[in-house]
Amino acid sequence: MRMRNKPWALDYLKSLPQWVIMNQTESKGYWRQLLKKPKIAIEIGTGKGDYILSKASNESECGFIAIEKDKNVAAIAAKKFAATNVDNLRLILGDANDLLLWFDKGEVDEIYLNFSDPWPKRRYHKRRLTHESFLDQYEQILTKNGKIIMKTDNKDLFEFSLVSFSQNDWMFETVSVDFRAQENDDPYTEYERKFVALGHPIYQVIVKKR
Amino acid sequence: MRMRNKPWALDYLKSLPQWVIMNQTESKGYWRQLLKKPKIAIEIGTGKGDYILSKASNESECGFIAIEKDKNVAAIAAKKFAATNVDNLRLILGDANDLLLWFDKGEVDEIYLNFSDPWPKRRYHKRRLTHESFLDQYEQILTKNGKIIMKTDNKDLFEFSLVSFSQNDWMFETVSVDFRAQENDDPYTEYERKFVALGHPIYQVIVKKR
Repeated sequence: MRMRNKPWALDYLKSLPQWVIMNQTESKGYWRQLLKKPKIAIEIGTGKGDYILSKASNESECGFIAIEKDKNVAAIAAKKFAATNVDNLRLILGDANDLLLWFDKGEVDEIYLNFSDPWPKRRYHKRRLTHESFLDQYEQILTKNGKIIMKTDNKDLFEFSLVSFSQNDWMFETVSVDFRAQENDDPYTEYERKFVALGHPIYQVIVKKR
Repeated sequence: MRMRNKPWALDYLKSLPQWVIMNQTESKGYWRQLLKKPKIAIEIGTGKGDYILSKASNESECGFIAIEKDKNVAAIAAKKFAATNVDNLRLILGDANDLLLWFDKGEVDEIYLNFSDPWPKRRYHKRRLTHESFLDQYEQILTKNGKIIMKTDNKDLFEFSLVSFSQNDWMFETVSVDFRAQENDDPYTEYERKFVALGHPIYQVIVKKR
């Protein structure tokens, strides 16, 4: 999501050290201690943060880390987080390409990919967060039974992702081609509500490395 | 599809030996010779036969075998076939459970599953044509690089099938969650036209054994 530049965003993020983690060397390998939780889940491309904030509020036994590369968007998420008293949530201003700088091997139990950029042009497919190069990184930071949980309303991205998962030896646990047709307790993202209101199906897949 | 009983159906099928193959021992292991083609494709659950008749008409380099277990429905398909002059198409009055009686190991290059019965109740899921027990049979009769090509409009069946393929070591070549959104030359089945006219998405997946 593009957003107007907020000149104050970076300073604001730095002013919230209890929420926004800036230092890789102090966090990599220490996330479970830092969050005092036995499980760690991360969301790559958190946007305004509604999804991961709901997750963190609902699941107190797990630590959650929101990752957003756009400082202007991250500032909005951080503001929301700071208005709550959840203690199992942190934010990283970071890029999906830098996951290995932020996380140690086997340090993550679940990865959420929610409504990731579909990068429709073929020459940019390698930027899709389910491209082989990213899957290789996810494999490294995930625990042995770790999962990727992906939601999107974009057909092309979903089809691409199913094939990419399959061809890179990730096994499907569940697939849904109309995730909101049945009630379930997975939180909505900001976008998701709009898509569902328009009658668009939401696609979801949960995979594990073979 | 249920259809009114046609008392003449079986005799009619027997009266068309150039189209309807009744003898397993004379055909099993000999399909390529019988059809004089280097490739064999089968459709399990052919219904009234429009799909496979179109395939056979369009692809002269391949032999096609329509399999239908309901004699009343098979009679309708046979009648259609007999009204043409295609020479690369045969029909079997047979059940998916008997595939190994009809086909030798590695004798089939492609298997089509079009709008198979979704068997919605959980206790009947083992009757779904993408249940593990059927996939094991398909593996046996398919060539090493053989494919299963499945189309359906049924969400539950599609989701079940994707998971079943994945968990039984079939790899996705392509997946489509809206197969008719783009033009392509795959023939329509009788049902498919109605579904598409109603605006329902058609799902398709092509898999290969790992």
